[in-house]
Amino acid sequence: MTGKQKWLIPDGFLQPQSSGDQVSHEAVCVLNLEEESALIRLTFYFEDRDPMEDFTAECPGRRTHHIRLDQLTDDSGCGVPRNVPYAVEVDSSVPVIVQHSRLDTSQEPLALCTTMAYSG
Amino acid sequence: MTGKQKWLIPDGFLQPQSSGDQVSHEAVCVLNLEEESALIRLTFYFEDRDPMEDFTAECPGRRTHHIRLDQLTDDSGCGVPRNVPYAVEVDSSVPVIVQHSRLDTSQEPLALCTTMAYSG
Amino acid sequence: MTGKQKWLIPDGFLQPQSSGDQVSHEAVCVLNLEEESALIRLTFYFEDRDPMEDFTAECPGRRTHHIRLDQLTDDSGCGVPRNVPYAVEVDSSVPVIVQHSRLDTSQEPLALCTTMAYSG
Amino acid sequence: MTGKQKWLIPDGFLQPQSSGDQVSHEAVCVLNLEEESALIRLTFYFEDRDPMEDFTAECPGRRTHHIRLDQLTDDSGCGVPRNVPYAVEVDSSVPVIVQHSRLDTSQEPLALCTTMAYSG
Repeated sequence: MTGKQKWLIPDGFLQPQSSGDQVSHEAVCVLNLEEESALIRLTFYFEDRDPMEDFTAECPGRRTHHIRLDQLTDDSGCGVPRNVPYAVEVDSSVPVIVQHSRLDTSQEPLALCTTMAYSG
Repeated sequence: MTGKQKWLIPDGFLQPQSSGDQVSHEAVCVLNLEEESALIRLTFYFEDRDPMEDFTAECPGRRTHHIRLDQLTDDSGCGVPRNVPYAVEVDSSVPVIVQHSRLDTSQEPLALCTTMAYSG
Repeated sequence: MTGKQKWLIPDGFLQPQSSGDQVSHEAVCVLNLEEESALIRLTFYFEDRDPMEDFTAECPGRRTHHIRLDQLTDDSGCGVPRNVPYAVEVDSSVPVIVQHSRLDTSQEPLALCTTMAYSG
Repeated sequence: MTGKQKWLIPDGFLQPQSSGDQVSHEAVCVLNLEEESALIRLTFYFEDRDPMEDFTAECPGRRTHHIRLDQLTDDSGCGVPRNVPYAVEVDSSVPVIVQHSRLDTSQEPLALCTTMAYSG
């Protein structure tokens, strides 16, 4: 089985400003090579408050899911706050591979950055 | 032998728009340190459809091959679809090293991002 | 326990010029999944002078800290020099995960790059 | 001892065009945590020609060296060709840590990307 069940991303930030056609956002990109669907739990860590733990997503078997963090809501309907530094823990029910990317359109044109998440 | 035979890239996306001299694209950059040529199979995973599995490329021994994903076609002549999130699995007949890069020229000037692929 | 106590970042550079609303900077982003607070020591290595060793920071348990390198000062009040290539060693009292990012606004609009640090 | 003696970077490219104050370039950023100086050999691999093997650099103990690939010359005075895809192998006499970064100023403003090199 290829991949890991736990992945970490220390540098998260949802840019509050956008310009042009594309909104500033981040994505947690999951690849599931297994046949079984991956149930995914996302935990957000902050500098000055307790973690937010009730975010979930799914990635079917032999599929990818590029989870948009600016569109994700937890069980109570709360979204990930913009303009606040955070970190992300990704826990999956089956081994997956995780990459994290940011699109910043605060100034036109856009800026991009990406990295594989850390899997211990 | 340096390298691995399987590499994974969860965040793939071919930006549909381009401006200026350079077309938006992604490249799977392969380095083959062996004497023997590497036969490479690329599998593309999507969010909402079955994987596309019939893409192949080659990297001769002691050479690099920067495989342009916007120019790649499978055995039936189909290309990688633009404007759709995907993930890439790279399988090689000999150990290689793989890095993935994106050039986005949807807004002038360009944006760049890169990461080593994941090798398990 | 997830993470490592030592992380390395070879490519550090504080761009001297900024434009627009955001100042050019780098951040060492720390995620601490433990209950215990992480005491962090940062050492800066240069091309042509001895290392600067007296920088410290803290990341409480189950928190992240995005340490702004342009705002950090050592025990004697000195900051990290701008416009000089450097490298960073991060030593933590408990295992943490470290990512390094640069924001360059020398020309408007901004450019971004990021990578997981190396943990040996 | 922290680090490795062999590092690989599959995606190398020296953008031929520049604008503004900064020239398009790449850097192989080396961090040497040992006391002993690191003697570094760089080998460049191409898509359509034999490797270039006679590039050397040095990184003193407890120093960093951000090796500018656009300024490097081999034993016979040849530089790394611009506008050609290549890959880089870095071999060091002592364990080091290596990160690779590209600055592209073909269109103003600049674009940046970076990744840790692969160390097997």
